[in-house]
Amino acid sequence: MINYPNKKKSTSQKLSSTANRGMGLELMINNTNDFYLDNDLAVVYKKPIPIQIVSVDYKARSAAKIVEAYYKLPSTTDYNGIYKGKYIDFEAKETKSKTSFPIKNIHEHQVLHLDKVKRHGAISFIIVYFSLLGRIFFLDSDYVYKFYHRSKSGSKSISLKEFEEFGHEIIEGYRKPVDYLKIIDEYYLKAPQK
Amino acid sequence: MINYPNKKKSTSQKLSSTANRGMGLELMINNTNDFYLDNDLAVVYKKPIPIQIVSVDYKARSAAKIVEAYYKLPSTTDYNGIYKGKYIDFEAKETKSKTSFPIKNIHEHQVLHLDKVKRHGAISFIIVYFSLLGRIFFLDSDYVYKFYHRSKSGSKSISLKEFEEFGHEIIEGYRKPVDYLKIIDEYYLKAPQK
Repeated sequence: MINYPNKKKSTSQKLSSTANRGMGLELMINNTNDFYLDNDLAVVYKKPIPIQIVSVDYKARSAAKIVEAYYKLPSTTDYNGIYKGKYIDFEAKETKSKTSFPIKNIHEHQVLHLDKVKRHGAISFIIVYFSLLGRIFFLDSDYVYKFYHRSKSGSKSISLKEFEEFGHEIIEGYRKPVDYLKIIDEYYLKAPQK
Repeated sequence: MINYPNKKKSTSQKLSSTANRGMGLELMINNTNDFYLDNDLAVVYKKPIPIQIVSVDYKARSAAKIVEAYYKLPSTTDYNGIYKGKYIDFEAKETKSKTSFPIKNIHEHQVLHLDKVKRHGAISFIIVYFSLLGRIFFLDSDYVYKFYHRSKSGSKSISLKEFEEFGHEIIEGYRKPVDYLKIIDEYYLKAPQK
């Protein structure tokens, strides 16, 4: 996932319905999680990027400098936390396609992780941002699992129509750009959000 | 926390009751979590170390090399996950003291994080390893919070006696070096572990 913290609004994203949609998805989700945290609604964090550290320069003890390191494949998903006693786990992805989301953007072990935590009682899902359409969808891990397996012999993508049919569109709020708790309240907990 | 993956048993750790206790705590917990994962008992992972990446060399696209990066202070705790539908969150620390654990080894924001997730319904705690005694304790975040606040005006440490009184000692298993789920079953869920 690519983060564009400095691109608040760009001319190439005219289709975005509002200013927030010009941000990268990661920043929008981080802002949303900050709002949840500040208002004590939920505690959800993005995990750090896993790095294999090879060499560190300890010249200055107060600021050890890593001079050789490599990106590692993440074992799990990007986000997890707790909401109303429920363990929450999700992965977030952007696509520039206007018609479908390529399944290969999610690693197999992430699909399996989402399925595993679900079986242990989690609410697990993916959030997909069609950046050129300015539309964001919440898709339960059951469907992610199903479409992932379909991709072995059939379509390699989840179509926009399938997101519309099986997912839930996340409608943007100003202070909660990706208000996924609203979906969880409505479709998982059946209680209105505070 | 320091990890000693290559020190399986060293002469300086004669007091350790078994071979496992010669490992660093991190490795013991990782092995335990692997056991839980392999046996589908729980899904708990250590979070990656947070790193501020400053400069990356992209010469070889397949293996981007990070050439300047720095350690960041973690926002949360090292471990979280799910067990029997419950969100689990903990921090793990070693001490070489034989009598007490210095509170300053846990950051204030970690104490507050443990307390916050508890209020949202988590099972949150610390695991402290008295490496020279070969003893490991599980201490609920309520006590961590209480002792943390005491440290502002009183004792800067949690004594071994307090761990004995308010915590739960984790008795080592061969394949589950730090079997904290047993404590959770016994004191939080009141159901025997599979």
